[in-house]
Amino acid sequence: MKKAVILLSGGLDSATVLAIARDQGFAAYCLSFDYGQRHNAELAAARRVAATLGATEHRVATIDLKAFGGSALTDASIEVPTGGVVEGEIPVTYVPARNTIMLSYALAWAEVLEASDLFIGVNAVDYSGYPDCRPEYIAAFEAMANLATRTGVEGKPLRINTPLIDLTKAQIVQRGTALGVDYGLTVSCYQADDQGRACGACDACRLRRIGFEAAGLTDPTRYRPAA
Amino acid sequence: MKKAVILLSGGLDSATVLAIARDQGFAAYCLSFDYGQRHNAELAAARRVAATLGATEHRVATIDLKAFGGSALTDASIEVPTGGVVEGEIPVTYVPARNTIMLSYALAWAEVLEASDLFIGVNAVDYSGYPDCRPEYIAAFEAMANLATRTGVEGKPLRINTPLIDLTKAQIVQRGTALGVDYGLTVSCYQADDQGRACGACDACRLRRIGFEAAGLTDPTRYRPAA
Repeated sequence: MKKAVILLSGGLDSATVLAIARDQGFAAYCLSFDYGQRHNAELAAARRVAATLGATEHRVATIDLKAFGGSALTDASIEVPTGGVVEGEIPVTYVPARNTIMLSYALAWAEVLEASDLFIGVNAVDYSGYPDCRPEYIAAFEAMANLATRTGVEGKPLRINTPLIDLTKAQIVQRGTALGVDYGLTVSCYQADDQGRACGACDACRLRRIGFEAAGLTDPTRYRPAA
Repeated sequence: MKKAVILLSGGLDSATVLAIARDQGFAAYCLSFDYGQRHNAELAAARRVAATLGATEHRVATIDLKAFGGSALTDASIEVPTGGVVEGEIPVTYVPARNTIMLSYALAWAEVLEASDLFIGVNAVDYSGYPDCRPEYIAAFEAMANLATRTGVEGKPLRINTPLIDLTKAQIVQRGTALGVDYGLTVSCYQADDQGRACGACDACRLRRIGFEAAGLTDPTRYRPAA
């Protein structure tokens, strides 16, 4: 069975990616990160999702992105925005080099496992604002990765799969629903509470809600009561 | 003053790199890693070197490379070799994706600092066996980095400097000595003791000793008494 390392955040996108990788016949080695995110409920969600979708293994690596600051997601002094993504600007929820760091850890594990594939859930909605969600970035990371590793040098290149990159949120939830993903288990909210209940107001919540609406599917998100 | 992030291990090479960056007029932001290495004495050495060579700031980030195993430097079940580097093979001291992970953290800090430069002490001796010490790897990382970041997208590219890449060990110690590096403060040994004293037998010790001999310089390394 082919092995794949799958970056699993506990959110809607990466849960869909895991389901797609499993559907393609991969043994799934899921990797999550505790990076001091405000919304730690997503790690609990990642565990539920990995178990439900038949992951072979699930590891949580602790990384210290807080040490460098610079993002609303890891720096308590920056407010999480609720006004929608501004076109053409990089959101304050962008975490410096986050995808590069996470892909680098995934690369290390992939090399030890001799995995042929790596999956990451970057998508069309994300890359409107985050530089490290664009196809040209992913292609550059793959090229770098295959120069970085013993396996790459020995002619067993690693492929980086981004099955969501051209999909809208609506298409993502349709695909995942068809593959049996229970999105009620996932947490996308930037400021979910301890029980994983969503705020309903942040950009992540808004994009997610619009996705279910556009797909004509019932939104299974657990929202917390309004204050 | 231009800012540079400098990967500082506490060994001979990165101490020389720090001295070169300072000589070029950079404010030096030094980054070391606690990655569960057997030779933790090198972190104490990094602190001494950073202080002595006028670093603006020195941070130690904890990263968990042990979680993935696969190297003699992080996996206690693999023996550290003492027989010399075998030509054309990747040594067992190679740590999967180590430089990629470390450069990724440096990239995150560089972006927050708005640093223009990043320095890493890869060199001609290392890249004979480690895939992630080759010039083509460094070039690929730089290309990826400038697609990954807000600063790269905004037209302020990060330059990755490898001032040692074409130097022999002898040339490195000559250059550093001319810049006032006290190599007695540095630790290169893969299995140094708690006091930072070198074994004298591992590949790192052998390469270092030969470097001082070839340079015609006194070897200031503190070796521990033979068993």
